[in-house]
Formats: sequence, structure tokens, C-alpha cells
Amino acid sequence: MAELRTNGDRLWQSLAEMAKLGATPAGGNKRLALSDEDKAGRELFVSWAREAGCEISIDSMGNIFARRPGTQAEAEPVMSGSHLDTQPTGGRFDGVYGVLAALEVLRSLNDGDVQTARPVEAVVWTNEEGSRFQPAMMGSGVFAGVLDQDRVYATVDQDGKSVGDELERIGYKGALPAQARPIHAYLEAHIEQGPVLEEEGRTIGVVTGIQGMKWLKATVRGMNAHAGTTPMEVRRDPLLGAARMVDAIDRTTRALRPDAVATVGEFSVGPGSINVINQEVRFSIDIRCPDEPVLEEQKKRVLAACGEISGDMGLELDIEEIWHVPPTVFHGNIVDAVEEAASALGLPGKRMISGAGHDAKYLAEICPTGMIFIPCKDGISHNETEDILQEHATAGADVLLHTVLRLAG
Amino acid sequence: MAELRTNGDRLWQSLAEMAKLGATPAGGNKRLALSDEDKAGRELFVSWAREAGCEISIDSMGNIFARRPGTQAEAEPVMSGSHLDTQPTGGRFDGVYGVLAALEVLRSLNDGDVQTARPVEAVVWTNEEGSRFQPAMMGSGVFAGVLDQDRVYATVDQDGKSVGDELERIGYKGALPAQARPIHAYLEAHIEQGPVLEEEGRTIGVVTGIQGMKWLKATVRGMNAHAGTTPMEVRRDPLLGAARMVDAIDRTTRALRPDAVATVGEFSVGPGSINVINQEVRFSIDIRCPDEPVLEEQKKRVLAACGEISGDMGLELDIEEIWHVPPTVFHGNIVDAVEEAASALGLPGKRMISGAGHDAKYLAEICPTGMIFIPCKDGISHNETEDILQEHATAGADVLLHTVLRLAG
Repeated sequence: MAELRTNGDRLWQSLAEMAKLGATPAGGNKRLALSDEDKAGRELFVSWAREAGCEISIDSMGNIFARRPGTQAEAEPVMSGSHLDTQPTGGRFDGVYGVLAALEVLRSLNDGDVQTARPVEAVVWTNEEGSRFQPAMMGSGVFAGVLDQDRVYATVDQDGKSVGDELERIGYKGALPAQARPIHAYLEAHIEQGPVLEEEGRTIGVVTGIQGMKWLKATVRGMNAHAGTTPMEVRRDPLLGAARMVDAIDRTTRALRPDAVATVGEFSVGPGSINVINQEVRFSIDIRCPDEPVLEEQKKRVLAACGEISGDMGLELDIEEIWHVPPTVFHGNIVDAVEEAASALGLPGKRMISGAGHDAKYLAEICPTGMIFIPCKDGISHNETEDILQEHATAGADVLLHTVLRLAG
Repeated sequence: MAELRTNGDRLWQSLAEMAKLGATPAGGNKRLALSDEDKAGRELFVSWAREAGCEISIDSMGNIFARRPGTQAEAEPVMSGSHLDTQPTGGRFDGVYGVLAALEVLRSLNDGDVQTARPVEAVVWTNEEGSRFQPAMMGSGVFAGVLDQDRVYATVDQDGKSVGDELERIGYKGALPAQARPIHAYLEAHIEQGPVLEEEGRTIGVVTGIQGMKWLKATVRGMNAHAGTTPMEVRRDPLLGAARMVDAIDRTTRALRPDAVATVGEFSVGPGSINVINQEVRFSIDIRCPDEPVLEEQKKRVLAACGEISGDMGLELDIEEIWHVPPTVFHGNIVDAVEEAASALGLPGKRMISGAGHDAKYLAEICPTGMIFIPCKDGISHNETEDILQEHATAGADVLLHTVLRLAG
């Protein structure tokens, strides 16, 4: 069984077939959640899973489970999957790769005539992207009991169409209640969506958890004045202050730890007139770190650095924390199983943290969970140019297969 | 005649009377160009000037000239004035002070029974502020031949009302063509609109010219990426780059010369999403300096500093010059006359440059011109809280009076 491998050509072919549904002229995919294209993607998946001999069940959130029975019919399954929906100008691999790698594992188990003790399931979660309906990760969120199904059903898109109605319209509001059941382990293969593996020339990322995150909103107030008549030395320019804060947030974060990140994304000035020193600047700060205490320290240092600049320049500063997501730490046994499977395949994995959220975040609330990353070109995703190499796709599926074998007995 | 002084109480009272027209609840003035309030202000000025025995003439731009004859009827006049229109939430002194100080000079000449050789005129220029109709300094601009009257007439406000129609409506489209005639000298008293005189405890600014100015527009492009999955060391963040440029523009300008200023007023980011590293940042740069070669050097250094940051960070940078106003240098004889008048009054003046534009800028194109500044509270103007001290108002009017006496013979 140690010699068993997935069929890389078949997986690559399936990825190409799926990418035809909602293909964009620029080579990407637009397969918004619960759209006709999403429906077509689901049907293709279901047809392939049936061909592979799986039992299909669909729950009330439209999550699709394709089950390959184990020798112990009642044993808790080992589950693997991701999502088929994409961003409006999305790529061909974000989510899809995890679903089709899970399907390829089932196909490869069939090819090898392998009987696992536990059932093995491939799963498609509904609306991971959150582009058409917010929030993201709806299917796994309701499944894990974090989101309320009735509120999710009532959520509407820009045209006023609701999740509940659209699920019915595409025929994927299943009879099975969307709620957690005993699961032995959940695995999710995914493209990294960052540049680390590619830059280090590594093939497999052994994901140990998902970063914690805080969102802060800063307001800097100074003294509105005439750009021509106000000498430099008497100015209290909030934009100059905010600019120094942006630089300080960067420096502070780099000095803290190599895996901490900070981003100023929103940034607006008032009055924003070419010949006027501004009165007020508002900006956001997104800080992330894998460790909760370090994340708190990061926030503390960012506040201190900004406060010092504000004080030195005679500005007023308010910074408010508007969101906090604690880090997710994946179960050690699952992380170890992924790492051992990768090593045994001669693909030593790099332990790393996921910077982005995934369905695995909610699954980790209800069962032992882990993730496998493969490189993506230039670290780009959520973009029509998203790309991967076939050999990496194959390698990731092989690691998934052997992790499943370790866990499914 | 060396003992002649203006009547500070009368001037102060006139300022208070004028401030009742278009008074705002917060203590400022809203007397937009060619509005009913502007009309009321003009009529009050004209009535006062007639009481002072002046001949009134109104030109086709609504500029009002109140003339006190000289003993040489045909001699070129010494002219002084400013404007009565205000910003929408403007103050009680910007412009008004220069008009009423000029009127006070005429009244004081009457009080002292002084016969000047040359005629002395007090003038009100139309639409200096440019709030309701753009551009600013319309009346003096047409008068000096810099702006075209037909184009100015066709200019409309936000409600579609034109300058030409509004001039007729308020009864101030005069018969006299708005065009330059021989003028011996033009003087304009004005509040400083900056903090320098107040901070240095000086009463009189002897204005030697108006700063040159360049407006630049910068675009910084980087690499749009995920705020969570992109490690700090591989980012090409255009906002971080632009922030460092804002700081560098400030440092470069401070290092160049104490009287150079630089302001980043407009600043926008794209896509400007809280969890996304931006793709592009656009900002404006307003640089000003009294000397043309130094202004060019300032631009060169700003470009070099921004270019270095952009290069170091792997960003793309475009900077375009969109406007250039060369410095105005006032006529040495007029500047000397103001300085000598101030010294003789025991009010040693500070030679300084005007950071803002004034009607005097256009007058300097057609005749020897100078300005007299008095302090304003905290350097604030274009604001309802704009304020001055009565003793400063009196001192400025006295300097204006004695400069007129020197020039009018």
C-alpha cells in the first residue's frame, strides 16, 4: 500500500474539465456560489463520484458528501474536501483542487482495491468564497454549528436572491440536516495562496493552523491649514503622521517575528484637497500572527509606535479594535500524519501557517483537522491568472492519499 | 503730515458693520461673490465712499473704484484695496480688511485735510475667493488682461447661474471696460493667513512677493496581494512606499530652505480593502518656494527622493507636473516704501513672502505693486474663527496711509 499513488494525469484532466464550467476569457473561472455554473460544477462532481461507486448525500446547506464505505460500516469517516465556488474573477484551483484531490483519492483507492477500515468521504462545502453571499464559509459554518442556518438562508445577493431560494432553485437543498456528526478527521488540500513554498522550492506545506487576526481602525486628527501660508515647523499634518505610522507598523511587525504580518489596506484623507493640509486621516490595520499572545504583543507595539508618532507631532489618535479572530491550531496527530505521509513519499513538508481562512477553520471546531498546501505560481490567487504545476497537484494528492490511509486504517 | 494717523475705532466699527452682512451663527461670514450678501456689502462700501466724497466708478467686471482726486487731476492714481467676497464658511477679515483699510486711508486724508498730488483710489475686486465661481481672482484677472472677460462671464456656479447674469442681477455690471489703465502703484493690506507674524510677535509684514508653486500628481503601483498569505519580505506595497514618500517629501523640503513648503493633500488608494495589499496609490504634491531656481531644485529633490524609495521597494512610480505658477516679485520701490513707512511709525516690518495668492498678484503684472500683512489669530483663515486684534488693524492701516502718502506725493 506504501506504493499506491494517485493518477496525476486523471486529476489534471478533471481539473481541466471542471475549469470549463464558468470559464472566463482571461483563463480564469467565474462560478459564483449557487449560480448555474456552481450547479453544473456540483453535477459534474456528483457524476464522477457516482462513477467511483460512492454514496452521495446532500445536506440542507447544499454540502455534498461522497462516501466510499469502509469495512467498519459504523466507524467515523475520514473526510476530505474543499469548495467548488470561485471569486467573480477567480482562478481554476482555489477550492477546486481540494475537492478533486479528495475525489482522486477515492478513485485511487478503487484502482488499488484498497479496503479501508473507516469510510472515506469527499466533501464539497457550499459558498466558501463569500463573494455572492456574505459571510464566507457558509456551508462549513452551519455544519459546524458556528453559523445559524435560518439567518444564512435569508441572506440575499445584490439582486435580492436568497441563499435558501437559490439552494432550492439549483436543486441542492438536501434532506439531511446540516449539522455536525462524528468525524474521525478532516483534511483539506489547497493551493497556498502565498509565495512561500514556491520561493523556497518546496512542494508540500504541512499546515499547522490558521493565523489569528485583528482588525483595527485608526483615526488621526491634526490641524487643517493653508498649504501655502503655513510654515513647515508649525504644521500638525495628520497625513504626514499617518504616513509615519504606516512605516512604523511595517517596521514594528518585521521586528516582532518573521511570521507576523501587518497591512494597511483602507486609507482615506479629509478634506483631501490639493492645496490644503488635511484635518483627518482614517486607516485600517490588519495584523495577523499564528500565536495569540504574540498577536496581542503585536497590537500593543503597533499602538505604542503610532501613539509615539502622534504624541511627537501634536496629533490626536484613536485606534479601535473592530474584529478579533483567535488563531486555529490544528490537531497535532493530524499534522504529524500529514508530515509523515509527505516524508514517506520523499516530499519533506514545510510546516507552515495558513494566512487565509478555509473551511478547515470551522471543521477544526468539531473534529481533528489538518491541511496540505501545494505551491501556486507567484503566490497569486483570487485572480484569473492563478496557476499551479501538474507535478505539485499530483504530489499534494499523493500526500492526501497517504494521510487518509494512515487515518482510515 | 508725519503725525497723521488713521482712526482705529472707526475702522474697527466699519469692519463690524460689514461683518453683519452674511453673518454666520458661528461668528463668520458667508458673502459669496455676486450673491445678495455681496451686493449688500458693495452697497455699504459705496455709501461710505460717497460719504467720504469719492467719485465711484464700476467696471464691466463689477470692480468698484472709489476715487479721491489729487491736485494733479491727470496723474496716475495710487490704488489700494482687496475684495469683499468670502468663502462659504469664511471669516470677517480676509479681503474685507484690505478694502476697509483703503477706505479708512481716504477718510483719514479727509480728516487731515491732506491734498495729495496724485489721485488715491480704494478698490473692491470681484470674486477673489473663487468659491462660487472658478477661477479665483476674476475681477483683477480680467482687469490685468490675464483672464478673458467673455469666458469669465460664461462661468456658472453649481446652480447654473453665470457670472455675467449675476453681475447684471445685482446691478454691478458697469459701463467702464474692465481693463488696465495707467496706475502709479497698487497696495493691498491683508491678514497674513499664516502664523508667522503672531509667533514672532511682529505687527507688520512687508510682503516682497508671492511664492512660486508647482502641483505634481504621483501614482505608485505595486503588487495587489492577500493581507494574510503574503509574507512581509515579498510584498510590494504601494501604500507603504507612498507613506515613505510623504515622509521623504517633508524631510527633503525642510532640508532645502526654511521658506520652502510641501504638502500632500490628495491621497487615495486602490482597491482600498481592509484585508488586501493595495495595487495603486495616487497622491498630490503642492510645493512652493519664493525663488524660481530653488523651486525647480525642490521639485528635483522630491522626484529623486520618491524615485529612490520606489526603486528600493520594487514599485512603479509616475510623477507628473500639472501646474506651475512662477513666483511674483513685488517692485523694490514699493516694498521699500512700505518698509520705510512702517519704520517711521515705530513698527519695524518683517520682510516676508505671501504663501497664498491675492489680487495683488495680477496687479503686479500691470503696475508697481506691494502688500502689507497684519497678524491673524493662530494663522487661521478661510474659517469662521478667523480673528485679528484691533491694534493690528489700526497699525496696518497706518502703514498703508503712510505708504500712500509717500507714493501719492
